[in-house]
Amino acid sequence: MIRITGIRGCAKASFRKSLQVPLLRKFSTTNTKFTEAGTTHFGSKTVLKEDKEKLVGNVFSSVASKYDVMNDVMSLGIHRLWKDHFINKLDAGKRPNSTEPLHFIDVAGGSGDIAFGLLDHAEKQFHDVESTMDIVDINPDMLKEGEKRALEQGKYYNDPRVRFLVQNGEKLDAIESNSKDVYTVSFGIRNFTNIQAGLNTAYRVLKPGGIFYCLEFSKIENPLIDFTYQQWSKVLPVMGSIVANDYDSYKYLVESIQRFPNQETFKSMIEQAGFKSCGYESLTFGVCAIHWGVKV
Amino acid sequence: MIRITGIRGCAKASFRKSLQVPLLRKFSTTNTKFTEAGTTHFGSKTVLKEDKEKLVGNVFSSVASKYDVMNDVMSLGIHRLWKDHFINKLDAGKRPNSTEPLHFIDVAGGSGDIAFGLLDHAEKQFHDVESTMDIVDINPDMLKEGEKRALEQGKYYNDPRVRFLVQNGEKLDAIESNSKDVYTVSFGIRNFTNIQAGLNTAYRVLKPGGIFYCLEFSKIENPLIDFTYQQWSKVLPVMGSIVANDYDSYKYLVESIQRFPNQETFKSMIEQAGFKSCGYESLTFGVCAIHWGVKV
Repeated sequence: MIRITGIRGCAKASFRKSLQVPLLRKFSTTNTKFTEAGTTHFGSKTVLKEDKEKLVGNVFSSVASKYDVMNDVMSLGIHRLWKDHFINKLDAGKRPNSTEPLHFIDVAGGSGDIAFGLLDHAEKQFHDVESTMDIVDINPDMLKEGEKRALEQGKYYNDPRVRFLVQNGEKLDAIESNSKDVYTVSFGIRNFTNIQAGLNTAYRVLKPGGIFYCLEFSKIENPLIDFTYQQWSKVLPVMGSIVANDYDSYKYLVESIQRFPNQETFKSMIEQAGFKSCGYESLTFGVCAIHWGVKV
Repeated sequence: MIRITGIRGCAKASFRKSLQVPLLRKFSTTNTKFTEAGTTHFGSKTVLKEDKEKLVGNVFSSVASKYDVMNDVMSLGIHRLWKDHFINKLDAGKRPNSTEPLHFIDVAGGSGDIAFGLLDHAEKQFHDVESTMDIVDINPDMLKEGEKRALEQGKYYNDPRVRFLVQNGEKLDAIESNSKDVYTVSFGIRNFTNIQAGLNTAYRVLKPGGIFYCLEFSKIENPLIDFTYQQWSKVLPVMGSIVANDYDSYKYLVESIQRFPNQETFKSMIEQAGFKSCGYESLTFGVCAIHWGVKV
């Protein structure tokens, strides 16, 4: 259960709320009548019955599941690999020769996939079971989903190292200045109303020496590939309307990606917040990119 | 973990085999250099490291995961709801006033999602914990995935009621004639080389009174909606090529859907196999359909 859209972390409460409504589908029933010739092995009840109400909100009742699906649709499933690469490339964790644990914050990370992945990586690579993680999200339902996953996987639930906090990523009111070693945001910053405010806040909460590390959709550098990607982006909301009866969510998904600054511009914004040694890596022709910066 | 494409059940071994190759992605790296200004809290190792090999085959190593993703992409996630509807509408299970358990067979059902769902439904609705299930698939890796899921969920693993069998759906060599009460196939029959042979075999293995019950992509009845769907179908393989470096799988997905007969033609084929009281229900404008028939 993973996702890519990063509609999580969105400061637009109204849009976020709309995503919490279970998907309604349109069923066009052309032939639902069923004769009972074959009912002997099923007892007295009709073999086929209509029970559409049950469908609503079943699989798609959780916000996070919907994010997962949109991530898979937009990236044809590749966001899972991008996220693995993101975690492996960062390669964070308390080194054996270090005395201090690290303090992570994963912003707009309600469902916990990046946060749990980072902690798992630290443990696996460096036997680090001391570093702490604040998982923050503006959406309480996303955080509940993350807690549920922690409970189900039997790890990081009711763990003194891990906090789930409802927080606006642009402000992070509950997070002290100069308190974090690693700030991650994965497919979330695109949905901030004021991205620069979010970057400035990232700079505020990081310790000197701390790293800002971001995964987000970006700009395709090859014009021909970009042309195809734009066609895809045009058809996606219409298909969302037909199949999922959900034009708005897919339209928002596409527009938010188109609106987001390109690699160089976003890098400048990170520098603008005060970060040094900024850089980026484009993945998959620039469909997405990893950006980073260090607070010195 | 669910899926829709039904590339499972495909009799074309070569294609099936190609799907078992982990996805390879194209990473275009524009800037991977990272200065070490921020390494104090990470010890002596470079903070960012390249470790691309690890990515390959990580999330996408299992065949079933790839099916899941393709299902989500093609149906924007709605296949989950179609499958729930499929199970609820069938409403199968040993009724309290019946003495005999039911014998189910789920064909091309390796990952177990439909089979487990049917058994769960029977237990929940009718307290049926006696009916049996044969899960058959031509692909051993899909069946392994199903067994793994059974093990993980702590249900239907090493269960005398449930068998996992490698079987070609067109023949079902290991299944006795007139032995099953319910034959289900969900997003699988489209991939049979000889669909009519599969239907004839379904008729053979069912008892008199048994039901054939099928969920599959179908034909959109509204021309305007179909036009959009066709545009989507054109862009999908190209996007598959760009993002997932996997043109062939998405191309196959689209072509196999386009090649599959429409609702009325497929109904005729079910009748041709000998079934009576045949019918269908189109879901989501005909993007997919449930078909059924009874052996009398």
